[in-house]
Amino acid sequence: MKVSVLRLGHRIGRDPRISTHCALAARALGASEIIYSGENDEKMIDGINKTAQRWGGKFCARYDLEWKKCILSYKKKGYFVVHLTMYGIQAGSVMMKIRKQKKILLVVGGEKVHPEVYHLADKNIAVTNQPHSEVAALAVFLHECFLGKEHKFSKARLRIVPQEKGKKVLNKESSSLKKHNS
Amino acid sequence: MKVSVLRLGHRIGRDPRISTHCALAARALGASEIIYSGENDEKMIDGINKTAQRWGGKFCARYDLEWKKCILSYKKKGYFVVHLTMYGIQAGSVMMKIRKQKKILLVVGGEKVHPEVYHLADKNIAVTNQPHSEVAALAVFLHECFLGKEHKFSKARLRIVPQEKGKKVLNKESSSLKKHNS
Repeated sequence: MKVSVLRLGHRIGRDPRISTHCALAARALGASEIIYSGENDEKMIDGINKTAQRWGGKFCARYDLEWKKCILSYKKKGYFVVHLTMYGIQAGSVMMKIRKQKKILLVVGGEKVHPEVYHLADKNIAVTNQPHSEVAALAVFLHECFLGKEHKFSKARLRIVPQEKGKKVLNKESSSLKKHNS
Repeated sequence: MKVSVLRLGHRIGRDPRISTHCALAARALGASEIIYSGENDEKMIDGINKTAQRWGGKFCARYDLEWKKCILSYKKKGYFVVHLTMYGIQAGSVMMKIRKQKKILLVVGGEKVHPEVYHLADKNIAVTNQPHSEVAALAVFLHECFLGKEHKFSKARLRIVPQEKGKKVLNKESSSLKKHNS
């Protein structure tokens, strides 16, 4: 399954941390790319792409001014459009159907989502019908999509070796191993 | 199972949105409370408690200056301490054991986590060994803890009725029903 994420309504002054968390969670949990609409935050997008390169895999962040055209073009390419919203139907009731899709465009809102998004989406899905976080909703949805599988990140320069206590990072670039048994 | 969350190193100027997302995701996905250490952000904590009251259930946010004493006191009360960190062992390998616990203190870091936290924790657990988001890690961990169950929120003033398209919110206080078929 291939998942692209569209993050709506990014604002340069207010949103870089939340929007960056969306991107990194999307990457870690199996998405292929994130597209930002709203304000064009080149610095943030550049930072995400640099992080993605260091940690491996093919994840890519980019900007698209026109969110509606973007959704329509992904629909044309055969993507199933899921809009994550607290007002939608409960994720648990549709995940079986979702997992059968080959390509998904996952739309996550900012502060205010245009009403049209609810109609353009093939499904409006809630990860709980409670107010919480687009980062959390995105993460749980992707985790469920891929049934909790650990993803591989090829050509990583940095790689963590899981530890019971402390930290161990392999750095291929400097051929060094940083270990802090903190 | 009862889960409390301890959010380390909150900074008033920088962190309110991420820290609020941590609280709301914790509440929506089944935690009972969140404790903040770092700077005492009364305004943020007050806002979270007001949101929690409106949407029901017994979730509560509070501040504790002394994170180490806090961890030790929860250990004394029989809580199993889980520290969420990208350097830890993979969540999938220990969730069976985690689900057998009756009380969990879930520690999530800020920018820099004190090395002692890794040793005070009973388990250092990674939701993927990739850099991403404490909000995402917290959400996926809680989702796995409770096996994806939908939680109940008693005495809610606001409640969403899940919709295929648009929004439907029941407001008990004003006995009104807001519906926007946007």
